[in-house]
Amino acid sequence: MDITFNNNAKLYIILPIIYFSWQDNIINNKEFKAISDFIEGQEWLTKAEKNFLKSKIDAVSPPSRSELAQWYEKISTTLAGNPKVNTLTELGLIISNTERPVFTGEDIQKIAPAFVKLETALGISASEIISNLSQNSTTHTHAHKTIESFSIPKMTALLDGNQAAIINSVKSIISTKAFNLDIPTDVNQFREQVLEWCKILADNGLGNYAYPKEHGGKDDIEGYFAIMETLSYHDLSLVIKFGVQFGLWGMSILSLGTEKHYKKYLRDVGTLALPGCFAMTETHHGSNVKGLQTTATYNHADRTFTINTPVKYARKEYIGNAANHGEMATVFAKLVIAGKDYGVNAFIVPLRNKNKEVLPGITIEDCGHKMGLNGVDNGIISFDNVVIPHENMLDRFASVNDAGEFESPIPSDNRRFFTMLGTLVGGRIGIPRSALAACKTGLATTIKYSDKRRQFGPEGAAEVPILNYRMHQRRLMPYLANAYALTFGLQYLTDRFVKRTEDQMQEIEALAAGLKAYTTWNTRNALQECREACGGKGYLSENRIDDLKNDTEIYTTFEGDNTVLMQLTAKNRLGEFRKQYGEMNVSTIFNYVVEQAKTSITEKNPFTIRNTDEAHLKDPQFHLDTFNYRERQIVESGAKRFKKLVDDGLDAFDAANVMHPHMLQVADSYLDRVVLEQFQAKIETVEDESLKEVLTRLCNLFALNKIDEHKAWYLEQGYMEGVKTKAIRKMVSQLCWEIRQDAVPLVDAFNIPENCLGHIATFKIEEA
Amino acid sequence: MDITFNNNAKLYIILPIIYFSWQDNIINNKEFKAISDFIEGQEWLTKAEKNFLKSKIDAVSPPSRSELAQWYEKISTTLAGNPKVNTLTELGLIISNTERPVFTGEDIQKIAPAFVKLETALGISASEIISNLSQNSTTHTHAHKTIESFSIPKMTALLDGNQAAIINSVKSIISTKAFNLDIPTDVNQFREQVLEWCKILADNGLGNYAYPKEHGGKDDIEGYFAIMETLSYHDLSLVIKFGVQFGLWGMSILSLGTEKHYKKYLRDVGTLALPGCFAMTETHHGSNVKGLQTTATYNHADRTFTINTPVKYARKEYIGNAANHGEMATVFAKLVIAGKDYGVNAFIVPLRNKNKEVLPGITIEDCGHKMGLNGVDNGIISFDNVVIPHENMLDRFASVNDAGEFESPIPSDNRRFFTMLGTLVGGRIGIPRSALAACKTGLATTIKYSDKRRQFGPEGAAEVPILNYRMHQRRLMPYLANAYALTFGLQYLTDRFVKRTEDQMQEIEALAAGLKAYTTWNTRNALQECREACGGKGYLSENRIDDLKNDTEIYTTFEGDNTVLMQLTAKNRLGEFRKQYGEMNVSTIFNYVVEQAKTSITEKNPFTIRNTDEAHLKDPQFHLDTFNYRERQIVESGAKRFKKLVDDGLDAFDAANVMHPHMLQVADSYLDRVVLEQFQAKIETVEDESLKEVLTRLCNLFALNKIDEHKAWYLEQGYMEGVKTKAIRKMVSQLCWEIRQDAVPLVDAFNIPENCLGHIATFKIEEA
Repeated sequence: MDITFNNNAKLYIILPIIYFSWQDNIINNKEFKAISDFIEGQEWLTKAEKNFLKSKIDAVSPPSRSELAQWYEKISTTLAGNPKVNTLTELGLIISNTERPVFTGEDIQKIAPAFVKLETALGISASEIISNLSQNSTTHTHAHKTIESFSIPKMTALLDGNQAAIINSVKSIISTKAFNLDIPTDVNQFREQVLEWCKILADNGLGNYAYPKEHGGKDDIEGYFAIMETLSYHDLSLVIKFGVQFGLWGMSILSLGTEKHYKKYLRDVGTLALPGCFAMTETHHGSNVKGLQTTATYNHADRTFTINTPVKYARKEYIGNAANHGEMATVFAKLVIAGKDYGVNAFIVPLRNKNKEVLPGITIEDCGHKMGLNGVDNGIISFDNVVIPHENMLDRFASVNDAGEFESPIPSDNRRFFTMLGTLVGGRIGIPRSALAACKTGLATTIKYSDKRRQFGPEGAAEVPILNYRMHQRRLMPYLANAYALTFGLQYLTDRFVKRTEDQMQEIEALAAGLKAYTTWNTRNALQECREACGGKGYLSENRIDDLKNDTEIYTTFEGDNTVLMQLTAKNRLGEFRKQYGEMNVSTIFNYVVEQAKTSITEKNPFTIRNTDEAHLKDPQFHLDTFNYRERQIVESGAKRFKKLVDDGLDAFDAANVMHPHMLQVADSYLDRVVLEQFQAKIETVEDESLKEVLTRLCNLFALNKIDEHKAWYLEQGYMEGVKTKAIRKMVSQLCWEIRQDAVPLVDAFNIPENCLGHIATFKIEEA
Repeated sequence: MDITFNNNAKLYIILPIIYFSWQDNIINNKEFKAISDFIEGQEWLTKAEKNFLKSKIDAVSPPSRSELAQWYEKISTTLAGNPKVNTLTELGLIISNTERPVFTGEDIQKIAPAFVKLETALGISASEIISNLSQNSTTHTHAHKTIESFSIPKMTALLDGNQAAIINSVKSIISTKAFNLDIPTDVNQFREQVLEWCKILADNGLGNYAYPKEHGGKDDIEGYFAIMETLSYHDLSLVIKFGVQFGLWGMSILSLGTEKHYKKYLRDVGTLALPGCFAMTETHHGSNVKGLQTTATYNHADRTFTINTPVKYARKEYIGNAANHGEMATVFAKLVIAGKDYGVNAFIVPLRNKNKEVLPGITIEDCGHKMGLNGVDNGIISFDNVVIPHENMLDRFASVNDAGEFESPIPSDNRRFFTMLGTLVGGRIGIPRSALAACKTGLATTIKYSDKRRQFGPEGAAEVPILNYRMHQRRLMPYLANAYALTFGLQYLTDRFVKRTEDQMQEIEALAAGLKAYTTWNTRNALQECREACGGKGYLSENRIDDLKNDTEIYTTFEGDNTVLMQLTAKNRLGEFRKQYGEMNVSTIFNYVVEQAKTSITEKNPFTIRNTDEAHLKDPQFHLDTFNYRERQIVESGAKRFKKLVDDGLDAFDAANVMHPHMLQVADSYLDRVVLEQFQAKIETVEDESLKEVLTRLCNLFALNKIDEHKAWYLEQGYMEGVKTKAIRKMVSQLCWEIRQDAVPLVDAFNIPENCLGHIATFKIEEA
């Protein structure tokens, strides 16, 4: 009689190993040989039995498909009755002993170890394989799902705050049919569409929101920012065109001009009857605005200024509204009187007549196709000795008097220059708020899709929503936490700006510059994750992530290059630190020493740096201490390091260069701390318990994820030991897992108009 | 007589403080008050003198512009003669004492400390301010510039290796006028342009390079990869269209079909006479290919297969060449014979006739506008019971015999599935090589621009090329090092693939999957830095970074989602680890223990973990040990952790989910090590000393930058202490500074056709 498994039940002991060797893709010929050798070495098998088993592991003559199917049947039936087996050998033993005991306990003790060793040597993870066969649809990974632990409308109310009315009003406008988001690929069509949208918004009284009431506006800058932000759920070319017209162009008149300019222009700007530009940047001077080369030469004879582009690359570049629609521009140029340079000033220069014909002396080129924002008509403007009247100088901070002399309430050119720029800080509030809204649209689209999109699962079992995968959560949940954190951070910035006093301006400017960089970089990173998390769907324009990403890409550059802005913020922080440090008298030195000692005792003691208690890791005070510590240490070491470099003989310019990366950290640690403080403060104001709970979870994730990002620094400082940083990483992962359940409601609370979300956010998945 | 500075020279001591207070933007009213109070407190001043000085610091009545100019004159003249002063007080003293000694040494000792204290309290960095006035154009930051320390053609030869001939031939084709890179914004025009380009390439014999000679090809897969890579300097839609036609479509026939298919199709595929598609992905199944739902039902009566899309989202999506040009497709579908499912197999299905009319039963939709690659006509294909003849089954790994029964040399469905997919690994070599080329184009454009673009400088001095800024270097130089490292890493992968044996296939597949993810993510990050580093110019389409970025964006998703691929690689590494660990007999255990002990003695001893010697930090063995240590520890802890999770009762599917982020590190650490080894090995082969030197610098940067990226992990492990990680960070910065000098020659050595670079790479900056 031929040998078979059936008529020789003891042979079943090796069946699972043989079966999975054929199944598993990482077993190769060498390993088949190893099994074969192993069989040969088993003394309890007859030669015939060995030959039979070896024939089943012969790569040249594999078992038939139907034989494999029989084996599978045997194995899966046995598994169903014994789901807790740990090794293939154990499984094999059970099969052997199914009908009657073939192996005794003694036999098993003797032969099993060699089997298990073989199994291990093959690199097979039995538990993994067995689990794959189990068709288990009741794993934690399956069971995890969306809940709604809090009231979405209440959360929306919290996010919108005192601006809810205007936010809702803008949302209802951009949800109308006229705002259908069908972006034309033809650039000219797109530009006209965007202009048309802007007109509708102006017609609805949204253009002049920030202007004085006597000039048609509502005198409500806070509302203006809310409008910018809410529009940013929609197309971002629209937002930038809107911002160029009503923000840059209009606000440059309001900030740098005087009553005569307001009267003459503001009403028409606010209704879009007078489209205009903000012409500051030149090809050769973007970040270094002080180096602008365009000249405005005063001619006392006829009291005019002549605007001129002295060399090719002094032309104004990237100017929004210039290529097609702008009729005038605020032009920044060096004022020259009697051959003397009085620094950068601003002038209103007509570009086109009402028939949109470019005026003599003006040359306008199109910037051409861009990575994004193709609905904005950016252009390049050159001036060939264009003469404008005296009244066209925006003369709030400087003017030319009747005697043809320069006059200014701020005598220092340097200071006047910064004061002028300071009045334009509003852009650095509007841009991050716009970036954050775009980020929210991307997150909402991605998270809602990921909650429905299923891929993979144990073999034979249902597939799992991809949002249940840890990796997927780890990529998205921290950005969801950041989005909440930044909402409150930017509300704080707006509030500070609205209520500003003169003495706070430098701090607010530094905060705005920093938060602009911080937020736009966050949007850049978040949308990148969104794109990848949506896979191929994330690449289709219908799902909007491409436009959100490409449009906001330039946010890291315009209104100030992020890297340069972070230096600016850092410089302010260093200055503030120097003042504190410099002002130290006996009592402040005492306080400083006490403060440092307190850190050593409460934060840097051997217990705390190794403390991994959940309560400690989730303690808001721990988060704040940790953020504060980083901020303080980095600014302090920055000041010391700069001084040392210069003391060691380096030129200050070189020293500043060496310090650039350090300075970025000065700004970053400051911004982290400010945002955390605002998030914590906001939570304190919440009374609804379920809201408070989910916000606390988000705030914990925000804080711990930032600490995790900077853990190398904390480890270097001895502020934490490895055991603690590892516990934090684990808790970040756990928080992501928990927040995943609230993720969909949390993005629903952004209350983004449905037409602004990508298709995949709302499409219905049919039964497969 | 009125008091003036001139007639009362001692007052000059405070002039610099007053002057810079007006100049410096971070001084506010509170601080003006502090200076005023300070003046009031100086006992050596008369009441009149105090009043005079206080009048100069009155925010309500600031000094006039001409007065400021006089002060500036005084200060700058003094500075010119005393460039080394350290404080504003020192400067003031010198002015006071210019004509005759006003202050004696004794006086100075008495009054100066209070001045310096005031100065510090104001947060003024005197050295910074003074340096800004010095108009010093001889700083290190100015002086640093491009040199050419090695022979560019020799470097190019090294990079091109044995493929130089075909590389140069492709470069000359894409430099012709027909390949003018003027991308139409109209999608249809763009698609036709790309098809036209592909035809030219096919006419030049590049399409069938990898096919057997008897079917018109050159049997040269290595050459095919070199073509793909070189084309990638040009438009990437072209590359992907080329890859779909000659790679995916052609190679699926070659890999999965048999001689009858080669004869019938390959020649026409290679000449582009027969455009075709590779139809695998379905809307609901991308990563999880095993879950495909399209069916191919065998009908024995007429020996045909019926291809059908059973539910809407089982349609084939994102299929390149489908929307416009494809006449046939390799369709992956579940083979069903007599109601039984035999797993995924491949079939050739006609889509269109020669007039490009879609055939009955076939529905093709356009995927519409995409984030990038709009020159590729991606489409969605549905099949409504389309009947194809028996011979259209690609039957290398499975077939239906004359009796209507399923037959396969690989009985396990699972194993057959992976074997089929394994034959398609070529795509995972072509894609990273294409991604690397795109990355090089971006880097070359950005680095060449940054070498010329100037922005900022000490006040009044020349502006500095932005590539001289540390931050800018820190952003770009590591990617330049990575580009060199990956060139050699991908050459190694290609070489392994070309010379593969059956037993190596799993390892090579794992390596290809990993390097595909590793390289495409590197390209994503590098191009992001390039975009931002070029500022506004990086946003203009003429500079190509937008297309490079948007086109390669999907490289992280197609040919396998990167996150999924990294899991695949990690799984293989874990399997290999288990085999080694499992196979341990006495002698291997002994070796293992010795190895571990050696690490403790040589790498983890108290001296080494704090060793910051330059020679040590630049020692290739240190780099390799460090990389090896990370790889070994992570895979070992991964295996242990997974086992523990399962032992603790977690379902294996859940355990694998928890392990995802860890697994990513398993793969990443393995890839880091492989790439470093290849870079080091390549340097060993270089004889030219100057080449060797610059490559060693790049390799040091590659290694140390990776260690710096993972320093948190090394610190957690106690493999390094903070003092060492800080020294490494500093050395990374120093290497960036040094490599900056060779940066332009290093990108010139890529020898990218000039028409493929962004405009800013080659434009001439005129005199300002």
